[in-house]
Amino acid sequence: MRALLVGRFQPFHKGHLNVILKIMEEVDELVIVIGSAEKSHSIENPFTAGERILMISKALKKYNFPFYTIPIKDIEFNSLWVPYVESLTPKFDIVYSGNPLVRLLFKERGYKVKKPKLYNREKYSGEEIRKRMIKGEDWRSLVPEEVAEVIEEINGVERLKILLESDKL
Amino acid sequence: MRALLVGRFQPFHKGHLNVILKIMEEVDELVIVIGSAEKSHSIENPFTAGERILMISKALKKYNFPFYTIPIKDIEFNSLWVPYVESLTPKFDIVYSGNPLVRLLFKERGYKVKKPKLYNREKYSGEEIRKRMIKGEDWRSLVPEEVAEVIEEINGVERLKILLESDKL
Amino acid sequence: MRALLVGRFQPFHKGHLNVILKIMEEVDELVIVIGSAEKSHSIENPFTAGERILMISKALKKYNFPFYTIPIKDIEFNSLWVPYVESLTPKFDIVYSGNPLVRLLFKERGYKVKKPKLYNREKYSGEEIRKRMIKGEDWRSLVPEEVAEVIEEINGVERLKILLESDKL
Amino acid sequence: MRALLVGRFQPFHKGHLNVILKIMEEVDELVIVIGSAEKSHSIENPFTAGERILMISKALKKYNFPFYTIPIKDIEFNSLWVPYVESLTPKFDIVYSGNPLVRLLFKERGYKVKKPKLYNREKYSGEEIRKRMIKGEDWRSLVPEEVAEVIEEINGVERLKILLESDKL
Amino acid sequence: MRALLVGRFQPFHKGHLNVILKIMEEVDELVIVIGSAEKSHSIENPFTAGERILMISKALKKYNFPFYTIPIKDIEFNSLWVPYVESLTPKFDIVYSGNPLVRLLFKERGYKVKKPKLYNREKYSGEEIRKRMIKGEDWRSLVPEEVAEVIEEINGVERLKILLESDKL
Amino acid sequence: MRALLVGRFQPFHKGHLNVILKIMEEVDELVIVIGSAEKSHSIENPFTAGERILMISKALKKYNFPFYTIPIKDIEFNSLWVPYVESLTPKFDIVYSGNPLVRLLFKERGYKVKKPKLYNREKYSGEEIRKRMIKGEDWRSLVPEEVAEVIEEINGVERLKILLESDKL
Repeated sequence: MRALLVGRFQPFHKGHLNVILKIMEEVDELVIVIGSAEKSHSIENPFTAGERILMISKALKKYNFPFYTIPIKDIEFNSLWVPYVESLTPKFDIVYSGNPLVRLLFKERGYKVKKPKLYNREKYSGEEIRKRMIKGEDWRSLVPEEVAEVIEEINGVERLKILLESDKL
Repeated sequence: MRALLVGRFQPFHKGHLNVILKIMEEVDELVIVIGSAEKSHSIENPFTAGERILMISKALKKYNFPFYTIPIKDIEFNSLWVPYVESLTPKFDIVYSGNPLVRLLFKERGYKVKKPKLYNREKYSGEEIRKRMIKGEDWRSLVPEEVAEVIEEINGVERLKILLESDKL
Repeated sequence: MRALLVGRFQPFHKGHLNVILKIMEEVDELVIVIGSAEKSHSIENPFTAGERILMISKALKKYNFPFYTIPIKDIEFNSLWVPYVESLTPKFDIVYSGNPLVRLLFKERGYKVKKPKLYNREKYSGEEIRKRMIKGEDWRSLVPEEVAEVIEEINGVERLKILLESDKL
Repeated sequence: MRALLVGRFQPFHKGHLNVILKIMEEVDELVIVIGSAEKSHSIENPFTAGERILMISKALKKYNFPFYTIPIKDIEFNSLWVPYVESLTPKFDIVYSGNPLVRLLFKERGYKVKKPKLYNREKYSGEEIRKRMIKGEDWRSLVPEEVAEVIEEINGVERLKILLESDKL
Repeated sequence: MRALLVGRFQPFHKGHLNVILKIMEEVDELVIVIGSAEKSHSIENPFTAGERILMISKALKKYNFPFYTIPIKDIEFNSLWVPYVESLTPKFDIVYSGNPLVRLLFKERGYKVKKPKLYNREKYSGEEIRKRMIKGEDWRSLVPEEVAEVIEEINGVERLKILLESDKL
Repeated sequence: MRALLVGRFQPFHKGHLNVILKIMEEVDELVIVIGSAEKSHSIENPFTAGERILMISKALKKYNFPFYTIPIKDIEFNSLWVPYVESLTPKFDIVYSGNPLVRLLFKERGYKVKKPKLYNREKYSGEEIRKRMIKGEDWRSLVPEEVAEVIEEINGVERLKILLESDKL
C-alpha cells in the first residue's frame, strides 16, 4: 500500500518525522508532496523546494523505507489540485493530511483520507521554528540533526533575518 | 441590444435575479460573466464555475429570455481584463456592474456602463448567505428555489463548514 | 440526461449541426465546449471564442432545446484536461467526440463516450470551408445561414486572406 | 559600468530622481526595472507599465545620460526572479535597491548590491503621493513637473478616486 | 508623433537599421518592441531579450533620436496581443510592421498601420545571417559594427553551432 | 558528489539504465530530472510524470544507491530553465546529458557537463520502443522487466494505439 502526505515543510521538523514514522507502520511506501514548491525567500516560506527535498531525504535516510519527494507548485485552482497531484505522482491508496481543505478535495475525488495525530503541535510547528530562528532562540532541538546541518550550510537563519527587515518596509 | 453583467455569484441569489429582471426590461440579450471562474472550495468562493452556471441556468429558465453564461478566470492584469472578456464573449453594447473598478475598466475602453440598483443589499448578498450557511441559519429564503436545490445536491453547506475549519488552522 | 460535445468550431458548420440534432434525440441538455478558446486570427483558428459562441447560439436558436456554450482554452497538459473541463461545466453523463484522444481522456476518467456519426465528412469540415474561403469558392452552402451572416459581419473571409499572406512570410 | 535599479514607480517621484542622479555620478549607464509591470488600476498600483515608462523617460530626458526602462512582471517565484531579470536586461555590474529581499536575491546570485540613501523618505514616497491625490492635497510638488503632466493627461487622480470606492465595497 | 516597430531582431541587422532611419524621418519618437522576448538559445531565436536590447541600443546610439526598447513575450492569444503591447508601452500613433498578422491585429483595434519598405530583403534578414554564422561565411557585413561586437562578446556564433547539433538529435 | 541526469523517459529503457549504472560508478547520489513532466497521452510523450517516476523507481530499486526523481515541466524559456531546475532539486556538482542544448545551458551557468556514452542508441531509444509498441513488435526486451510490468498495468500499449488514430485525423 502506498500513502500520500502533503506538507510545506518550512522546515521539516520532528513533528513531521513523528507523523511519517507512524504512517510507515501502516503502509509500504510513502509519497511526500512538497507543497508551494515555487515559494522561497519569504518569512512564511524561507526555503526552496530543492532545499526542502534535501532536508527530508537526509532526515529519513536512516529509517530505510521507500519514499518519494515530489515538489508541487500552487495552482490557485482548488478543483484542479488533486488531478494535478495525481499526474505528477505514482498512484496512491490513502491520503494523510492535517489540513481539512486538502482532506475535502481528496475525499470529493473518492480517496480514503486520514488525519494524522500531531505530536505536541504548539512546539513542533514550522511557524514556531521560524519564530525562534528570528529571535535567536533554540530551534535546533525541534528539527532532526540532519535538517539543522542543511539549514546551517545554506545560511538559513541569516536569510530569515534579512527577510524580516524586508517585511517591515 | 446585448448587455453584459459581471459577478462571482457565490452563490446566485435573489438580489442577482432582481437586477437581471430589471436589465431584461431594457435589452434583448444578456451575457452573464461568471468571474473568478478558477476559484472554488474556499470560504469566499465555495462553488465551482460549473456549479454556478448550473444555478443560474436553472433559476433563469422559466423567464425565457436569451442569455449566455461565460466562465472567466481572474488574470491579475487589470489593463488586459476587458480585452480578455471581449475575446470570450459575443459583442455587447452596455455593461452593468456594481463594482467601480469594473465600471472604470470598461469606461476607459469606451463602453457605456451603468450601475444597477441593488435590492436590499445587506440581506441579499453572497457574504450574508455564506455566513448564514455556516451558522446554520435560514439561507434558503435568500436564493431562488432552483439554486437551493443545486446547493443541496452538491452538499454545499457541508463543504462550507469543512472549509471554515481549514481557515482556522 | 446531459451530454457534452467538444469541438473547435472554426467555423460552426452543417456537419456540426447534424451531429447536434442527432444527439438531441437522445439527451435532454447539451454542453458545447468551444475548444482552443484562446486561439484566433490564424489560418487553423481564424475566429475568436466570442465569435464562435455567437455563431452557435444563432444557428441553434430555432431548435429550441437547452444548451450551454462554454469556452475552454488549451492547457497543454493532457492528463489535467478532463478535470479542467469538469470544473467549468455543469455535470454531464455522456461525452460525444470524433477525436480518439478526447474519447480516451474521458474514458480513463470513467465517462461513457460515443463517436458521433459524421455526415459527409470530406465536405462538411472546418478545413474544407476555410480552404474555400481562401480560394474564393462557395462556402456559404456548407454553414447554417446564421453563421454566414456572423462571418460577413466580422469580415471573416478577408481576415483569413490576410492571415494567408502572413503565413507565407 | 552599468547599474540596475529596481522599483515600482507608482508614480515616479523626486525621491527616485534624487537616487538616480546620485547613482549616475558613479556609473555610466542605468537599467531601470519597472517592477510589477502587469499591475495597474489598483490603489497600490494605479498606473500601467507604459504610463510609468513615459513618466520616467520624460523626467530624465534633460539629464542626458544613457538609461533603459524595462517592464518586468511579478513571477511569484523568488528564486527565479534574478535570472528572469537577467534574461530581459543588458548585463549589469551592480544593483541598487532599498528593499532587503531584492538585495538578498541578487547577493545570493553573486552580485554587488548597494542600498541607496533615500532623501526624505516620509515625504517622497509613492504611498504618500497616492494618499495626497485621494485627499485632494498637494502632490504636484513631490514629483517632477513632467510626471505631473503625464498624470494629468491620463486623468490619474480621478482614476485613483474611483479605485478608492471600489476598495470600500 | 510616436511610432511603434515590432520585430524579433535575431539579430538586429542593417535592414532593421535602414527601416528605422526612414521611420525617424516621419516621427518624433520610436517604441521598438522586442518580440518573443522569452525565446533564446534556439536556432530561430539564439539571443536573449537582454542581448538584443544591447545590440539595438549600441547600434542606434550615434543617431541620437529618442527611442524605447521594450521586451514583450509571446502570449499565444492573438486577440489579446495588441492590448498586451499597449499596457507595456507609452502611447503610440502609428504602427510599422512587415508582418500582415501584426498589421491586421493593430488595424482591428483602430490603429494606422504601415508596411515599411524593406531594403534588399534576401540579403538583410535574420535567417540569412544565422545561416551564414552556421556555415562560417561572412555575416559581419550584414549587421552594424556594434552588433558584431556584442555577438562576439557573448560567443554568439559558437552558441548557434552548438544549437545546430542539438537540432539534429 | 551528486550528479544530475535529464531525460523524458518515454519510457525508461535499458539504455537509460546502462547510462545510470555507469554514472553511479563515479558519483554518490543521482538527481533524475523527469523532463516535460506536464506532457502525457501523446505519441511522443505517452506516459504521465507519475507513471514515469514509478517505472524508474521500480527499475532502480535493486541497485540500492541513493537517487531522487524530480518532475520538471517545460517552461518555454530556455534562459530560465537551469535556474528553474536548480530551485526544485538538491544542489548538484555535475550534469550528464546527451542533448547539446541542455549541456550548453548548464555550461553557460558554470556547471561541469558530460556527455554519457550511449549504448546501442538505434535500438535502445524511446522512439524505437514506441514504434514497436504501435506495430505490435517486441518491445519488452528493450526495457527493464519492472518497466514492462508498469506499462502493462496501465494499458500503455493500448493507449499508444488509440493516440495513433487521433494523430491521423
